[in-house]
Amino acid sequence: MATNLERFSADASVREHLETLAQAIRDKDVDALMKHYAPDIVVFDVMPPLAVQSADDYRKNFERWFASMQGPIDYEMNDLRVSMSESHAFCHFLGHVKGMRAGGEKADYWVRVTTCLQKANGQWLVGHEHVSMPASP
Amino acid sequence: MATNLERFSADASVREHLETLAQAIRDKDVDALMKHYAPDIVVFDVMPPLAVQSADDYRKNFERWFASMQGPIDYEMNDLRVSMSESHAFCHFLGHVKGMRAGGEKADYWVRVTTCLQKANGQWLVGHEHVSMPASP
Repeated sequence: MATNLERFSADASVREHLETLAQAIRDKDVDALMKHYAPDIVVFDVMPPLAVQSADDYRKNFERWFASMQGPIDYEMNDLRVSMSESHAFCHFLGHVKGMRAGGEKADYWVRVTTCLQKANGQWLVGHEHVSMPASP
Repeated sequence: MATNLERFSADASVREHLETLAQAIRDKDVDALMKHYAPDIVVFDVMPPLAVQSADDYRKNFERWFASMQGPIDYEMNDLRVSMSESHAFCHFLGHVKGMRAGGEKADYWVRVTTCLQKANGQWLVGHEHVSMPASP
């Protein structure tokens, strides 16, 4: 049974993990970013297709997104909640994306993000991610 | 450490849980359905708002959806994957929804579903759910 202190530091390690991941997005550093994802990850991303079936395919989505933006991306996590055991964690937050598109228009929008992690060999890895906007009514 | 057999039956109990939940959707049985959700659940649903902040509000979304459909809803879970520990599970699948809208038009569409569960007093409860379609490009 984990003590409260162990529990707290485990929670902190997941939050730190998410913060490092967010920083890689801000820096548009695809190599640093992809270290967080399990090779066999299934992703439900904000743009089509319906499902992305591997980290290799998810990498292409990030490359496309980063190429479509000028300079760094302002990316903030809001209302983050983490629920976890020793080996499994699910986290969700509202992501606020701001920046300049390659064409010169300002980007400023919100996405809903669910990040699910599992521990392998003492390391947290994202095993599933779901990023979306609500459908237009 | 859980044996493989215990692990398998835990996995089966989560799958059974999801199947019961799906059956409540097919039957449009809101009371049976809501038994699966934690009161303080945060949901990222397919329609606005950005975030649904409680089971009470999620119930209203289901009531609205069920009222918009004639008769039962044909709802199938495809490509289900479950990853779990003793107390936490994250699951994702592609949901195929078919039926007849109140206005008489046929409904036939896919949603991406992430369902995150945690165990409380020996019972699995959904603590977070994310349902979406990809944004139109």
